[in-house]
Amino acid sequence: MAEEKKNLGEMINTFDMAAGEALGKRESHTPKIEAPKAVKADETFEVRISVQNHPNKMEHSIRWIEVYFREDGRPFNPIMLARIDFTPTYSEPEAKLKVKLSKSGSILAMEYCNVHGLWSAKEVIKVE
Amino acid sequence: MAEEKKNLGEMINTFDMAAGEALGKRESHTPKIEAPKAVKADETFEVRISVQNHPNKMEHSIRWIEVYFREDGRPFNPIMLARIDFTPTYSEPEAKLKVKLSKSGSILAMEYCNVHGLWSAKEVIKVE
Amino acid sequence: MAEEKKNLGEMINTFDMAAGEALGKRESHTPKIEAPKAVKADETFEVRISVQNHPNKMEHSIRWIEVYFREDGRPFNPIMLARIDFTPTYSEPEAKLKVKLSKSGSILAMEYCNVHGLWSAKEVIKVE
Amino acid sequence: MAEEKKNLGEMINTFDMAAGEALGKRESHTPKIEAPKAVKADETFEVRISVQNHPNKMEHSIRWIEVYFREDGRPFNPIMLARIDFTPTYSEPEAKLKVKLSKSGSILAMEYCNVHGLWSAKEVIKVE
Repeated sequence: MAEEKKNLGEMINTFDMAAGEALGKRESHTPKIEAPKAVKADETFEVRISVQNHPNKMEHSIRWIEVYFREDGRPFNPIMLARIDFTPTYSEPEAKLKVKLSKSGSILAMEYCNVHGLWSAKEVIKVE
Repeated sequence: MAEEKKNLGEMINTFDMAAGEALGKRESHTPKIEAPKAVKADETFEVRISVQNHPNKMEHSIRWIEVYFREDGRPFNPIMLARIDFTPTYSEPEAKLKVKLSKSGSILAMEYCNVHGLWSAKEVIKVE
Repeated sequence: MAEEKKNLGEMINTFDMAAGEALGKRESHTPKIEAPKAVKADETFEVRISVQNHPNKMEHSIRWIEVYFREDGRPFNPIMLARIDFTPTYSEPEAKLKVKLSKSGSILAMEYCNVHGLWSAKEVIKVE
Repeated sequence: MAEEKKNLGEMINTFDMAAGEALGKRESHTPKIEAPKAVKADETFEVRISVQNHPNKMEHSIRWIEVYFREDGRPFNPIMLARIDFTPTYSEPEAKLKVKLSKSGSILAMEYCNVHGLWSAKEVIKVE
């Protein structure tokens, strides 16, 4: 697609979409979402969101991560769950959060690298 | 596409993508980007970003707008330009910003409505 | 006061508190709040918040501005009105916002410079 | 002090400053900072920042927490370490972060409750 026709959504890389890039670049930009496969409705659980093995310098770092939830059957998705701003050299692009859901769906994370743009990932989660 | 296979980028609505929705909903969620068609390199200009005719209540509002730039020829886009958080009832989802660019490209805006999710728009801008 | 006894509130500089610093440093860090002296209740008006004559480089810039409102007679203040993140070199630390108030009070702004910390200012506003 | 003369820093509550308020209100608004008493220079460690026993509803919640560092001997403090936005009912006001320091000082946290304003706390940390 011509670059200038691209919408923002079409610029958000995923590990699969960026198949033409070096593996190291794909691995060091794709957010990692660690959550239970299944949780109980309306009970708090921990989610770890991180970007691993990426430089953390002022001129090149993961500036922030946003965390969303796509809820099964909701007319419009996603729901924002949290957003974390990081400071190069002082804080690593990683956070453990406490989340509570009432329906099944997917947790999604998007990170912004000031050199390599926006990258997202997702994990299905079952609510029982 | 099956909902659970969707990446975050595929959930970001645009006026055209949401063609099946009521016109009022599409119009009241699509960010409006007002910028000059052409600007001089490295000279500051004003951009107005807004979402118009949307409710502004605690239970339903535009929570924030992010502003990005897709620079022609840059290997990875976009570059984040600014982000504005709003407070329901007190602040309208609108901001005039001062921006400086050195190459042509597109200004992109994405807003988050806590009920209707993520919506984006774009405007081409020529840098001379 | 011993540095290690200081609370966060005691680290937020104002033009007056920083009287021992060079005038240029105080002027280039104090947020400027431009709003009408008096507005009508529940009518939208424009506020310009800026930090002027400050460097705008990756290694030294105004990273963000937060805007608050202290409402006369409210048991707990302030109310957050908006927050703007800026990107060094691309966006200037300035925003014009649309705000709506129902009681008199003060608009307050706080900016964060990654080298010189937190600085705040305030302007009284009358709601009629 | 007359309310309208107050600077933003003078509106940031601490557990001690708010001594006239009900104990429950003070306890449910003061950020809790859990970090090692001593860490090694330039080695990553975990900090848990939370606000406990506070309502988490759309009309009353901890909207965000900012985390700062006051570094001993730095001419201007603080340094921002991270900022976390939360979503009422979905995410609890709590995050575990990974931080790296090179000098001793204090970790500070400030939270914003949309009903009860700004509250801060601090913990001294020794870097060896």
